Amino acid sequence: MTTARIAVPVAQRHFEDFVPGTTDEFGPIAVDEVEVIAFAQRYDPQPIHTDPAAAAEGPFGGLIASGWHTAGLVMRLLVENYLARDASLASPGIDELRWLWPVRPGDELHVRTTIMEARRSQSKPDRGLVRTKIEAINQDGRVVMSMVGMNLFRCRS
Amino acid sequence: MTTARIAVPVAQRHFEDFVPGTTDEFGPIAVDEVEVIAFAQRYDPQPIHTDPAAAAEGPFGGLIASGWHTAGLVMRLLVENYLARDASLASPGIDELRWLWPVRPGDELHVRTTIMEARRSQSKPDRGLVRTKIEAINQDGRVVMSMVGMNLFRCRS
Repeated sequence: MTTARIAVPVAQRHFEDFVPGTTDEFGPIAVDEVEVIAFAQRYDPQPIHTDPAAAAEGPFGGLIASGWHTAGLVMRLLVENYLARDASLASPGIDELRWLWPVRPGDELHVRTTIMEARRSQSKPDRGLVRTKIEAINQDGRVVMSMVGMNLFRCRS
Repeated sequence: MTTARIAVPVAQRHFEDFVPGTTDEFGPIAVDEVEVIAFAQRYDPQPIHTDPAAAAEGPFGGLIASGWHTAGLVMRLLVENYLARDASLASPGIDELRWLWPVRPGDELHVRTTIMEARRSQSKPDRGLVRTKIEAINQDGRVVMSMVGMNLFRCRS
């Protein structure tokens, strides 16, 4: 199992650059209270995400980010640091998305990627499917979210 | 298999009200171009989601919403119409999230829920886990996104 990072920058990255076993880690991205509340007011309006006073009385003793907000912050880091910029095709989806630990305002998240599988398409040989284990890790080293992402990338050759 | 909706309103809903086989459908929620771009600029900054001119030249012939934005819109409908309001505990996660069809500005999405499983906790009998097939459907009846959600709810008794 290799643990070298992908050497090719995202702007030039293609399917062939995603080698199973390769790992990388990048970030941080900060979790901001104003943004936690604004995101949840639109997309996940539950008091645990939108109302600091109510959340303080709740099971987590304070405001926590919507799990979908955490996923969005992780996606931002993936776009900037991991996915191919010009050779990315649409993602078919995500497996095993897990919210493992509360994400709170003031947290700083890193993302760790591990390439699990890279398979060139039989029917469309100009592209391939990459499966990646994606973990979000907070400032204490705790994995707060994990998922398996699927991405289609164009081939260089 | 029952297809009756859940009779108990979200404000009173508890674990016992989530009966396998029950289905429901609610919405719509509108997909707005300004919001598609704003969401993606922060959480998924790829030209297909942020740049109408570049997206018009791309594989979808126009701007499409970030898959995470679609998930957020679906979550909004779930919070308002499906999940228990006061008896909801944190969600452990999501399985088999699939982006099946492009979501475009001007679309109107409905959500269809089908309860797959409801299992009271052995170790913590005051709560139970519900697994729900969740589908987002556009104005043409096309399923644009699907996933299996897991939710913990407090029991009434």
